[in-house]
Amino acid sequence: MTPPAFNPAFRTQLHDLFRWRRDVRHFRRDSLPPGLLPALIEAANLAPSVGCSQPWRFVTVDDPARRAAVRASFASSNAAALAAQPDARAAAYAALKLAGLDEAPCHLAVFADPDPSQGGGLGRQTMPETVAYSAVMAIHTLWLAARAAGLGLGWVSILDPASVHATLAVPPSWILIGYLCLGYPTAEDDTPELERTAWQHRHPATVLQR
Amino acid sequence: MTPPAFNPAFRTQLHDLFRWRRDVRHFRRDSLPPGLLPALIEAANLAPSVGCSQPWRFVTVDDPARRAAVRASFASSNAAALAAQPDARAAAYAALKLAGLDEAPCHLAVFADPDPSQGGGLGRQTMPETVAYSAVMAIHTLWLAARAAGLGLGWVSILDPASVHATLAVPPSWILIGYLCLGYPTAEDDTPELERTAWQHRHPATVLQR
Repeated sequence: MTPPAFNPAFRTQLHDLFRWRRDVRHFRRDSLPPGLLPALIEAANLAPSVGCSQPWRFVTVDDPARRAAVRASFASSNAAALAAQPDARAAAYAALKLAGLDEAPCHLAVFADPDPSQGGGLGRQTMPETVAYSAVMAIHTLWLAARAAGLGLGWVSILDPASVHATLAVPPSWILIGYLCLGYPTAEDDTPELERTAWQHRHPATVLQR
Repeated sequence: MTPPAFNPAFRTQLHDLFRWRRDVRHFRRDSLPPGLLPALIEAANLAPSVGCSQPWRFVTVDDPARRAAVRASFASSNAAALAAQPDARAAAYAALKLAGLDEAPCHLAVFADPDPSQGGGLGRQTMPETVAYSAVMAIHTLWLAARAAGLGLGWVSILDPASVHATLAVPPSWILIGYLCLGYPTAEDDTPELERTAWQHRHPATVLQR
């Protein structure tokens, strides 16, 4: 196999992909084309994983009752978060749209198996959290591949993980990493919605030298 | 701003990038070109973060004594991992090269601030681990950008996080997410080294339907 040559034009487009990947909460309702979700999961399965353990577990959620239970978990978690806001930010928080659970045609939960048989435990004895981190990189890989295909992804973390776990009836040991909404976005932007709404502006990264 | 159009040729190259990104442990010793590491960190700073909190903190490690202390932590953690291997796999484990700490010209530690002031706590009340997950996505972004620039990255997780934390004298609350080696790889491959050495083969992803 000849290694690919990644030229400056590709690197520019990759940087554009990083700049234009967004957390999307405003979706059109039209479905994904057949085969696209399996292709995205196949790409995610190329993500780095500790000890080559591939600990990510994908769960598509289509059952209306299960989707309603997830939506209810979001609603109660979001109400609690609103109640905990300082007065100065409560109105701004209440005005944010923080999930696209109603409109997104595709719901995908991602779990990690915390003790996968694959990999022989390599690399995770002193930092067992690397199993969860591997699943995070699978999500991020899927996110980038989705954006390159014109899709938007929204990661919903305002949820009770135990409730979602029970709702989806997955193996007891699995850990919920992220609950994802996927679909075509109503708009594209190079600026996060939380920045456009002045909730939070971005800053340069902190770099220390040692 | 006009949104970029990601065409099929770009998507094919992006898939090649996912396929050819590797965890590298065999580095040439030549330095990174000036400006490349800052550019990679700037790309990483475009990663998704919970509540736009940008909780990642980068630490370049150049001091020989600090590098030696990290190497010692790897050596003792790896010796313990070898001792814990079942007899049938001990020889195979011992034969693996699991870090490029000696050769890699660039060492970069990545931490997360578990309670960043930025973001107003949004999105992390029920799943506070999303702060660490954000830093993981920054690492993965940097990893992909590095590979596209012809560099290799190796994530060293066989370390005592408390020891590395003390060695690098970072703020007490910071959490070590990953210790990264960066440099030009001695070879490129589309197959993980752990697969080439028959430690672990990869499998299709598990997908459940609910």
